[in-house]
Amino acid sequence: MVEPQLNCGWQVQQKPPLLTRRFDFGAYAETRKFLDDLAGLSKSTGYYPDLSFGKTHVSVSITARDETLGEADFDFATKADALAGQAP
Amino acid sequence: MVEPQLNCGWQVQQKPPLLTRRFDFGAYAETRKFLDDLAGLSKSTGYYPDLSFGKTHVSVSITARDETLGEADFDFATKADALAGQAP
Repeated sequence: MVEPQLNCGWQVQQKPPLLTRRFDFGAYAETRKFLDDLAGLSKSTGYYPDLSFGKTHVSVSITARDETLGEADFDFATKADALAGQAP
Repeated sequence: MVEPQLNCGWQVQQKPPLLTRRFDFGAYAETRKFLDDLAGLSKSTGYYPDLSFGKTHVSVSITARDETLGEADFDFATKADALAGQAP
C-alpha cells in the first residue's frame, strides 16, 4: 500500500503499528474546537483514537485496526489534519 | 496541609508534584459527558489539566500550580471525582 501524503508531523511506527501526531494551537478555543471536530469524526467513522491534550495542544494516537496500518488509519489521520487546518 | 479525602484512584507524586487519576466508564457517551463537564470546570477555575482519553477512559494529570501540590490542586481533583460520580 502506498502511504498517502500526510503532514510531516505524523510519526509512523510499525511495531506495534501506530500513527501519532501532536497538534499545537494558539488558544484553548482552537484546541476545544479541534477536539469537538475529532469527536464528530469519531462518531461518523466509528473509530476512537487515543487522545491526549492540554490547554493548547492535542496528541492523536491511531492504532492499526488490522495487523498493519491501513487505509482507514491513514484516512483518519488525513481527516484530522484537515480538521486542524494543518494539512500538508 | 492536610490532604483532603480523595478517591483512592488518585496517585500523588511529589517530585515533580503531580496528581493523576484514571477514570473508566461503561460507554463513550459517559466519557464524553465527563470531558465536557471537565471543560466546564476548567473554564470556571481557569485551570486546564493534561487529559488523555480513549473511548471509555480518561486520565487526568494535575500539575502543582505552586512548588508543591496545594489546596487548588486537590480541590480540582475532588471536583473531578464528583463530576465522574466516582467520589470516595
